[in-house]
Amino acid sequence: MDLDLTQFILQVLAEDIGSGDVTSEAIVPSDAVAIAEIKAKEGLVLAGIDIVREVFHSLDPAIKYEPLAKEGDTIKAGAVLARVSGKTRVLLAGERVALNILQHLSGIATLTAQYVERIQGTKAQILDTRKTLPGLRALEKHAVRIGGGRNHRFGLYDGILIKDNHITAAGGITGAVELARNKAHHLLKIEVETKTLDEVKEALEARADVIMLDNMPLDMMRQAVRIISGRAFAEASGNVSLARVRQIAETGVDLISAGALTHSAPAADISMKII
Amino acid sequence: MDLDLTQFILQVLAEDIGSGDVTSEAIVPSDAVAIAEIKAKEGLVLAGIDIVREVFHSLDPAIKYEPLAKEGDTIKAGAVLARVSGKTRVLLAGERVALNILQHLSGIATLTAQYVERIQGTKAQILDTRKTLPGLRALEKHAVRIGGGRNHRFGLYDGILIKDNHITAAGGITGAVELARNKAHHLLKIEVETKTLDEVKEALEARADVIMLDNMPLDMMRQAVRIISGRAFAEASGNVSLARVRQIAETGVDLISAGALTHSAPAADISMKII
Amino acid sequence: MDLDLTQFILQVLAEDIGSGDVTSEAIVPSDAVAIAEIKAKEGLVLAGIDIVREVFHSLDPAIKYEPLAKEGDTIKAGAVLARVSGKTRVLLAGERVALNILQHLSGIATLTAQYVERIQGTKAQILDTRKTLPGLRALEKHAVRIGGGRNHRFGLYDGILIKDNHITAAGGITGAVELARNKAHHLLKIEVETKTLDEVKEALEARADVIMLDNMPLDMMRQAVRIISGRAFAEASGNVSLARVRQIAETGVDLISAGALTHSAPAADISMKII
Amino acid sequence: MDLDLTQFILQVLAEDIGSGDVTSEAIVPSDAVAIAEIKAKEGLVLAGIDIVREVFHSLDPAIKYEPLAKEGDTIKAGAVLARVSGKTRVLLAGERVALNILQHLSGIATLTAQYVERIQGTKAQILDTRKTLPGLRALEKHAVRIGGGRNHRFGLYDGILIKDNHITAAGGITGAVELARNKAHHLLKIEVETKTLDEVKEALEARADVIMLDNMPLDMMRQAVRIISGRAFAEASGNVSLARVRQIAETGVDLISAGALTHSAPAADISMKII
Amino acid sequence: MDLDLTQFILQVLAEDIGSGDVTSEAIVPSDAVAIAEIKAKEGLVLAGIDIVREVFHSLDPAIKYEPLAKEGDTIKAGAVLARVSGKTRVLLAGERVALNILQHLSGIATLTAQYVERIQGTKAQILDTRKTLPGLRALEKHAVRIGGGRNHRFGLYDGILIKDNHITAAGGITGAVELARNKAHHLLKIEVETKTLDEVKEALEARADVIMLDNMPLDMMRQAVRIISGRAFAEASGNVSLARVRQIAETGVDLISAGALTHSAPAADISMKII
Amino acid sequence: MDLDLTQFILQVLAEDIGSGDVTSEAIVPSDAVAIAEIKAKEGLVLAGIDIVREVFHSLDPAIKYEPLAKEGDTIKAGAVLARVSGKTRVLLAGERVALNILQHLSGIATLTAQYVERIQGTKAQILDTRKTLPGLRALEKHAVRIGGGRNHRFGLYDGILIKDNHITAAGGITGAVELARNKAHHLLKIEVETKTLDEVKEALEARADVIMLDNMPLDMMRQAVRIISGRAFAEASGNVSLARVRQIAETGVDLISAGALTHSAPAADISMKII
Repeated sequence: MDLDLTQFILQVLAEDIGSGDVTSEAIVPSDAVAIAEIKAKEGLVLAGIDIVREVFHSLDPAIKYEPLAKEGDTIKAGAVLARVSGKTRVLLAGERVALNILQHLSGIATLTAQYVERIQGTKAQILDTRKTLPGLRALEKHAVRIGGGRNHRFGLYDGILIKDNHITAAGGITGAVELARNKAHHLLKIEVETKTLDEVKEALEARADVIMLDNMPLDMMRQAVRIISGRAFAEASGNVSLARVRQIAETGVDLISAGALTHSAPAADISMKII
Repeated sequence: MDLDLTQFILQVLAEDIGSGDVTSEAIVPSDAVAIAEIKAKEGLVLAGIDIVREVFHSLDPAIKYEPLAKEGDTIKAGAVLARVSGKTRVLLAGERVALNILQHLSGIATLTAQYVERIQGTKAQILDTRKTLPGLRALEKHAVRIGGGRNHRFGLYDGILIKDNHITAAGGITGAVELARNKAHHLLKIEVETKTLDEVKEALEARADVIMLDNMPLDMMRQAVRIISGRAFAEASGNVSLARVRQIAETGVDLISAGALTHSAPAADISMKII
Repeated sequence: MDLDLTQFILQVLAEDIGSGDVTSEAIVPSDAVAIAEIKAKEGLVLAGIDIVREVFHSLDPAIKYEPLAKEGDTIKAGAVLARVSGKTRVLLAGERVALNILQHLSGIATLTAQYVERIQGTKAQILDTRKTLPGLRALEKHAVRIGGGRNHRFGLYDGILIKDNHITAAGGITGAVELARNKAHHLLKIEVETKTLDEVKEALEARADVIMLDNMPLDMMRQAVRIISGRAFAEASGNVSLARVRQIAETGVDLISAGALTHSAPAADISMKII
Repeated sequence: MDLDLTQFILQVLAEDIGSGDVTSEAIVPSDAVAIAEIKAKEGLVLAGIDIVREVFHSLDPAIKYEPLAKEGDTIKAGAVLARVSGKTRVLLAGERVALNILQHLSGIATLTAQYVERIQGTKAQILDTRKTLPGLRALEKHAVRIGGGRNHRFGLYDGILIKDNHITAAGGITGAVELARNKAHHLLKIEVETKTLDEVKEALEARADVIMLDNMPLDMMRQAVRIISGRAFAEASGNVSLARVRQIAETGVDLISAGALTHSAPAADISMKII
Repeated sequence: MDLDLTQFILQVLAEDIGSGDVTSEAIVPSDAVAIAEIKAKEGLVLAGIDIVREVFHSLDPAIKYEPLAKEGDTIKAGAVLARVSGKTRVLLAGERVALNILQHLSGIATLTAQYVERIQGTKAQILDTRKTLPGLRALEKHAVRIGGGRNHRFGLYDGILIKDNHITAAGGITGAVELARNKAHHLLKIEVETKTLDEVKEALEARADVIMLDNMPLDMMRQAVRIISGRAFAEASGNVSLARVRQIAETGVDLISAGALTHSAPAADISMKII
Repeated sequence: MDLDLTQFILQVLAEDIGSGDVTSEAIVPSDAVAIAEIKAKEGLVLAGIDIVREVFHSLDPAIKYEPLAKEGDTIKAGAVLARVSGKTRVLLAGERVALNILQHLSGIATLTAQYVERIQGTKAQILDTRKTLPGLRALEKHAVRIGGGRNHRFGLYDGILIKDNHITAAGGITGAVELARNKAHHLLKIEVETKTLDEVKEALEARADVIMLDNMPLDMMRQAVRIISGRAFAEASGNVSLARVRQIAETGVDLISAGALTHSAPAADISMKII
């Protein structure tokens, strides 16, 4: 991740700074120095605190950065998350980018933690999806882990997920699973998306490793779990919300995947102030 | 924007596809073709529909793409937004990236339209901020415009916004505005962030072009507008929500900027199905 | 793969052409045209024939390219593989890059086909490894498939392979498998490298999906296969050569991985002549 | 070379690591440290030992790297080539890339040294060609030098080599040499490829600086050398093998170029073990 | 600027060094060290002296660099500008790139200072334009500032300049200014290019912030200044030369923009010698 | 060159357009079309006319481009050089970049043609140097050829030029030439920089291929030519100006290199107007 991160940070700094910070270059002396504090303005689960260091160091390796909380900490409103000191111009140039990342990732970690909290005591695990914001997948999936969730596959390249279109193309679940088993490399498991109990049974017979129960009513989900009875992982997917996640977990599924973790998490409220 | 867009799309396709779509490559014949429909699953204001074409054409210029709605259209749940046809493998490889962009941008346009709707009849305009998701600023600002909002500056490079740190560095608002006027290029206006009525007056005397009323109570805002009385633009900022935006607008401010438009808009629900 | 391929070809053309083809620019008129034939100078299994098109089209989209054989064809010495026509300068500028790729990939496909041929009639499959030449992994793994082999994982990101260092870090095979099962995403199988029959047994008990038999004598391999008896895949690795591969296959292993396929395949002899 | 090398190493690390080393991230604690040894498993001429440092430092500048042998050393089987210490995860993440480079370059240096050894006592020098693996030319040519060979031109841009197609385009050797002399810059020598003694004579009269004797029988080569008699360099090319290289050298040629040095050198056997 | 600068320097070093400095690599021992002096061979205003450090440090962070003059200093012929010491090969590899940048930027600063000198005592300021050499805009605009000039907008993105084609498209100056005011963001001022006094008046009535007097005779310029009389900035443009600039300034304009500052400044004569 | 050119044009367009052409996007309707003419405002030798096409096509492949003059044509003031038609926004967005390139290259070609003109009738040829503007070398060297000049080496990588520092390092001219001959590849000639007649003699004895007469008085140059008398090329360098170039040529040197061709050529005056 580190390799890409450097490049990513340079890109997003360039997006904001472009040909220069016209305000600070006009007003702030080039040798002025300052100390700033990054502060949580609401309760949150912290994610991205180490990336902030990279943001400022990409602009100026001489910036001093002291995080006062750790990745994954549950933070109260008002807490100081980090102290950053060095050239004032650099602090102002990196501020927005640092906060944009930190607010987004902490927003995701916070929301994930709420999902995880809701299903406490069940055996289910909360998963993310590929419904991430373009260009931010690695960071967002990191935030999901920080919030206590678990990652689904990272992309089309590191996991087999057979959906209706694949099934149609192969003339049935059995054929599709067979093809995947023969052609993809041998270290990838096979997941099949199902919408009916018959499909669940067919997937099971085809020896799918994971069976996705897609948009099923709670009752059907329960039956599916009974049919599967441990011979494959059962993953609930579709129509997953904070309100409904506990009921889903109580059907006995192993995994619950929720796109909202990454595509709709509101930003956590965090600010930076020069002190 | 087009120049960057091509590069951006290649990057986000690479993020999802990586070393290949292992499922489709194993199961779907390389010459299979299909037609897919992109469909709104809830009401929304459409943004990003032309970018979807670029996503699929980046993978395969032979894909046929027919949008059935236009950028900015108000869409009802169930409406088909576009038809995409060509190689099945390409449709499946581009699907998630296309939807991730479309859902995010339409989410922003839809939320912006709600803000704009709320202040109908007042003279105020809704603005975005620099609180955008890293790497997505140009697209997100486009979505704000599509939703009826107006853009604030794009970055640190194309607008002068003097905040408390600049004021401290220059020893006061007057000095800061003076420096900006003398050093930055002559086609940039000068905005000053203020928190009190005294600061508003000082900014006005320093001939700031725009005065930001930051986190002011409604009443103070009203007084500030009266003091300014057209000699500068008045921009309300901080603590802007759908619930509160109308009241803010009715204070008489010219501009209302809201970070939530871009950092916290939930994704619009859109799907793609092969038919 | 296509997305990266374009970039890759531009890079390798730049590597050869640099600031220009000084010979052709001095001698060949800029509007001269010619027809060239690409010819096998020895028997081979063809791989890379479609990449040659991209090489020439990257230089000049007007080049006409007619392949006369298909990816995977078994070719006799002397056969014409493709005909390329267009500007002479372009033919000469692309010739070496096109041949270097074609010779290398066909060399790998040819060698792979020899391994596959040797184990005909056994149930084993030939796998490649991560011992590929830097920058060429996707192409080399493609060539292995073309030659009748199967791919192992593509990189560190799409398959779990637990080696001695991991085992040491986790305090044993059981602990290592457990950690992998709990922390990596649920669509990845788990392979464990073993050197002794005790390790094979422990891996089996930990429910590893694949057991690598690393550098084992044939006899021990046979016993390992018996112990595993279908409860996991058995993969032979280390000291695999054309001379020895049949004996290895006959131990009953499911998979045989050979680094030599990619790191030591001699180039196939192929030339291009203007006619 | 250094400038490109950094970029190259980041690319090949990304090729292998992609979205992360799933095995080590699951099993190895992020703060675990270890010491590893890189060891020759067969006799070889060492090339690439300094690049290994860059590989590990690209991942983590805190890695400690101690080479125990120097570029170009003749190494016995079993010798330790370098010691690498630092975070275990980093050692495991960089291992394969480091070895892939080291094995390939040492393979080339070792093969080159064998060619050079064979022609000991003659005045001939061993040259590489442009038949290098795509993207690896600078490194491979470095390895050839390390093995005692000499480089031919690096690409189409830094040397004039007139082949049959150029001769046809110019209507003869004389015309082609003339054009090259007038149009290319004055610091480039001119080499002409010849297949017959008549062509040798014509090239000589045209004052070519180097005459390539392409695929000539040994006897014809001897005559060519006699004809040239020092007025130009004589370069033997085509059908050069370890078996035949001494005979070629004894014809009296100055230079012998062999594509096999770079396109068909088997990897040297080198491993890395955590100790 | 720093972010782009690093990338820029790597590119221009690659342009010059390519596959290696063949002369120094053949002749200068890799461990030889030396001290070099960079010296002005004519009087000049220095610009770019800190970029020289980056050039050498991009090649080798161990190079020691001591500037003996500061950005913006007026330098006499013969003065030593900087001392550079370290590996001789590095000094020779970076020399030309360093000098090419330094000579070009100092050339621009020197020419700008001459323009500024000529208008001493008037209220006018010297501006650059977008007529910069491709790829060098940020550096050239920096050099203009160093020479005492002021920057015009950096590109099409950070300032509104309405020219005849925009006016035609909008059906008149009034309409064009109106559109710009409503659609572009509120921190950009609006400049209108005029060629007649009627246009000046119309621009003024449309409340343009800056009025460009394009290629006007001196007399018309004077009248235009009178008409504007401080209600907008007046910028003289077109046909600006060292010979004419004082007369232009004396018409009372606020700003004078000159393309020649950047597109036609002769290089300052600077050399580097190993001592 | 084409491969790099595409990338270069995208970079320089991005430099000017950045986040968008705010003026045209606000005022010019997105579907407005226009025809523009590119016109010479002074006499010039045309260079870069085909690059203009690439500039506009990089923005929009649908732009129609008709050059009305050819690379290298001698153009009279007032002549139309090309006609460009298509979307008005595209014409305005590409205008400045197209002109900046065209004006710079034509400026160089025009100046080169003046040097060539001055030495008409002598045997000398005009050469460029490595004193090019950063990032523009390939284009500038192209313009020199178009103006009738000849290129010196392109960079440090494709020609050996031994200067005083190399001579010092090697302990003399003889040693330096020897090292270059033995270590650099055999297709590169060797040039030696000399300042005295003794150095000329030593270079000649060392069998240098080209002898640079650096900053010699005319008389010494004449003697040097006599000493060399055809056994090597003689290249005059240093203090070359339009005023002095004929006298230099008449000393009998073969080559005259002038940095001013590329580092100090004033831009040719060219404009673009929508008609």
